[in-house]
Amino acid sequence: MTVSKTAEKSSEKAGDATKGRKDAPEGHGQGSAEALQLGELSEQLGYVLKRAQLKVFENFLRCMASLQLTPAQFSVLLLVEKNPGRNQTEIASTLGILRPNFVALLDNLESRDLCARIRSTNDRRSHILVLTDKGKAVLSRAKKLVATKHESRLNELLGQANREALIEMLSKIANEF
Amino acid sequence: MTVSKTAEKSSEKAGDATKGRKDAPEGHGQGSAEALQLGELSEQLGYVLKRAQLKVFENFLRCMASLQLTPAQFSVLLLVEKNPGRNQTEIASTLGILRPNFVALLDNLESRDLCARIRSTNDRRSHILVLTDKGKAVLSRAKKLVATKHESRLNELLGQANREALIEMLSKIANEF
Repeated sequence: MTVSKTAEKSSEKAGDATKGRKDAPEGHGQGSAEALQLGELSEQLGYVLKRAQLKVFENFLRCMASLQLTPAQFSVLLLVEKNPGRNQTEIASTLGILRPNFVALLDNLESRDLCARIRSTNDRRSHILVLTDKGKAVLSRAKKLVATKHESRLNELLGQANREALIEMLSKIANEF
Repeated sequence: MTVSKTAEKSSEKAGDATKGRKDAPEGHGQGSAEALQLGELSEQLGYVLKRAQLKVFENFLRCMASLQLTPAQFSVLLLVEKNPGRNQTEIASTLGILRPNFVALLDNLESRDLCARIRSTNDRRSHILVLTDKGKAVLSRAKKLVATKHESRLNELLGQANREALIEMLSKIANEF
């Protein structure tokens, strides 16, 4: 994979005073005006990953306000659409969602008539998941919103080639780290 | 509810389907009969960010097992070291940690004698944070562990140039998305 630079590399150590200021959101609680210095923190993979993820999720929620879908709910709908008839446990474990959280998430989707749990005929203890007609319609609108309002921002911010490189690197980390 | 497509296929082996699913191998759906197909999900920024972040945090916790530090605790120690004498609210808001969570986190660090809350002489309602001697020593060991066992893996996985590009892109997302 090739990655072109997206911004000038901020100088290490020497310029610590200016470094990371942008990262610090209104960090002045009780009267002190000066932003904190992030120092080494701004180079920590886990830290920047988490900050980026929070920012992306916030943007996702704003873009999806009209449909009231969280990132996790959207993932579940996408995965059920792509894999109809697979069971609850498979969907949850593929997404890495813990069982109690997943049950609450499904209760919500089912109460809004977006997906349905059906007792499996093969295994009475297991429930398979399917999208309802309303679920399919909402997912279709959600995909358009995500593409035009959310994912498109990433292209604007990084450019198409870097966007692809980023997704590739993140997938590699998710699979191999 | 309305379900137009009947779920005829329940490709379920009795019991749960937890094994080997955690990594959700993308694009390998055809090859392995049981794995779910991620489809569009594997291209969603939020999804890959979250999966990568979870994987990195898991690895961080393993690397830090001997010191029993979470990513958030490590971030707090780093930030307090870099900005001694700043108050609790500033540290929490810079890291984007909600107040109740931050109080619990500090209680833990203080009970282990890694940092201390001192009532500010300027503002009696506010507490400034400092590292204890033990906190400094633990942080120093933690930095070495992170560098040699955790961050170094990223270099192995992506190469130095791509690692830098990744951190840069993630910072850009965190600041500008």
